[in-house]
Amino acid sequence: MAAELLACDWGTTNLRAWTLDGEGAVIAQRDFPLGVSRLASGEAARRFEAEVRPALGAHALPAILCGMIGSNIGWTTAAYVDCPAGLADLAGRLTVAAEGVRIVPGLRCDGIAGAPDVMRGEETQILGWLAQHPERRTGRHLVCHPGTHAKWVLIEDGRIIRFVTAMTGELFAVLGEHSLLKSDAPADDDAAFDEGVAAAGAGDALAARLFSARARVVGGQAEAASTPSYLSGLLIGAEVAAVPVLLGAAPSQVALLGDPALCTRYARAISRTGVEAEIFDGEAAAIAGLWALYAG
Amino acid sequence: MAAELLACDWGTTNLRAWTLDGEGAVIAQRDFPLGVSRLASGEAARRFEAEVRPALGAHALPAILCGMIGSNIGWTTAAYVDCPAGLADLAGRLTVAAEGVRIVPGLRCDGIAGAPDVMRGEETQILGWLAQHPERRTGRHLVCHPGTHAKWVLIEDGRIIRFVTAMTGELFAVLGEHSLLKSDAPADDDAAFDEGVAAAGAGDALAARLFSARARVVGGQAEAASTPSYLSGLLIGAEVAAVPVLLGAAPSQVALLGDPALCTRYARAISRTGVEAEIFDGEAAAIAGLWALYAG
Repeated sequence: MAAELLACDWGTTNLRAWTLDGEGAVIAQRDFPLGVSRLASGEAARRFEAEVRPALGAHALPAILCGMIGSNIGWTTAAYVDCPAGLADLAGRLTVAAEGVRIVPGLRCDGIAGAPDVMRGEETQILGWLAQHPERRTGRHLVCHPGTHAKWVLIEDGRIIRFVTAMTGELFAVLGEHSLLKSDAPADDDAAFDEGVAAAGAGDALAARLFSARARVVGGQAEAASTPSYLSGLLIGAEVAAVPVLLGAAPSQVALLGDPALCTRYARAISRTGVEAEIFDGEAAAIAGLWALYAG
Repeated sequence: MAAELLACDWGTTNLRAWTLDGEGAVIAQRDFPLGVSRLASGEAARRFEAEVRPALGAHALPAILCGMIGSNIGWTTAAYVDCPAGLADLAGRLTVAAEGVRIVPGLRCDGIAGAPDVMRGEETQILGWLAQHPERRTGRHLVCHPGTHAKWVLIEDGRIIRFVTAMTGELFAVLGEHSLLKSDAPADDDAAFDEGVAAAGAGDALAARLFSARARVVGGQAEAASTPSYLSGLLIGAEVAAVPVLLGAAPSQVALLGDPALCTRYARAISRTGVEAEIFDGEAAAIAGLWALYAG
């Protein structure tokens, strides 16, 4: 079948592009090191036409883009849509960046302490996940999208009601690189991860619980090489214990959507709290979401 | 009155030394950039004799040292004493580093998730504070020693029962230097500090609450220059809300002991929780503690 759409998930560090056929199935896929943080002002449009379209043989196709490309450091600003919002709300608010090129708006809701909370890109994956699973378009569902800035998203009857962002991935990175807990060891020790989850308690007093990552090594109870795994368990454990409460959700089930390896770690932590965790592929959801927003 | 004791608070980054008279009053004081993190193995003894003693005219005086100089990267290891412990317990366990030079042991107690918690240096300030305030040697008291690694210490009838370390100062430093929240602005905006304290809630879900520091700026509600103050309030607010609970203390009063400027920030956050905060000078307490441990 001929290509009908050029679909792009264009984030801070990377651009992933697919050509899709008339049923939304992938024909070709390419990655580009063109994340918006690497682009000068005005560069996005030029490189999209000069590099992305030719590489996928997509010169004349309509294009739809989601992610940070719609932010004020991207191609053009696609204004946020306020929650609650569903597929039709976002499909009706696409921003035209150039002829044949539309950008998905981000989502905004009331956040902590009167500040807004925002997302750009995850909303497309969530809408795609709903498109992939018609049975989830009714009732209440809790989705977690782990990452540098994890998103916990409450869905009711197919619309995103509200969400909370947690900087867990960024905390893990800065503590692992720059603090007393820094280490070059991989975070691949499941037993230490589980110890970290247990040490997270109810997700309170994190600054104190973090010190246990140091104390267990100084006290001779653990090898220093297990610190990244323990730290990962502690931070993810604190997030899964406390963030759903903050969101006002008391789930019996969490749908994890995103990077499969990271989702597996979250599922491990969530399952220890007695909550069921299901894992869904973020890339497939992004493609489904871009197609659904295009097909409207 | 003639000098009777050379008293030193010898920490990770700095060495502060005093000569004290026969009543424990300061005769002279000098600082040295000889923190243990800057010393090669074996260097402490040599530089103490070659620089510290001559600078204070203290060639023949008995010396007592507290702090990280008693750790395994210091002069010689002064083994930890387990809690509960009071002045007599520590005074009876001084470690002889060289002729006329004794080191105060650190304190250890059971910490989070089976790991030990430890301190080196703060115990001397706390025992000194008790020596300065005879009326505090009975009953139950909660002391907070803010810093890179803040210590919350529960005292009963003059003995340190247990304590918890919180890495709040380190979190503030690594987030302010290396994360999305990095900023060169000073943390001197009281209104933003108070907003941060309010956003800390009960000290749960810190990774989510931290995102509000970004969102309030992106959302146009605050200037980026207020981020360090907000972050300081958020982290200290989360600590003062949750760590006393973790320690099993529900105080009506907290004694803050340490750097006066930092204690003032903590007092501001604590007072918003309805708890009374008193501030005591950490340096005076360290001197009183070293003298009390010497005088036994």
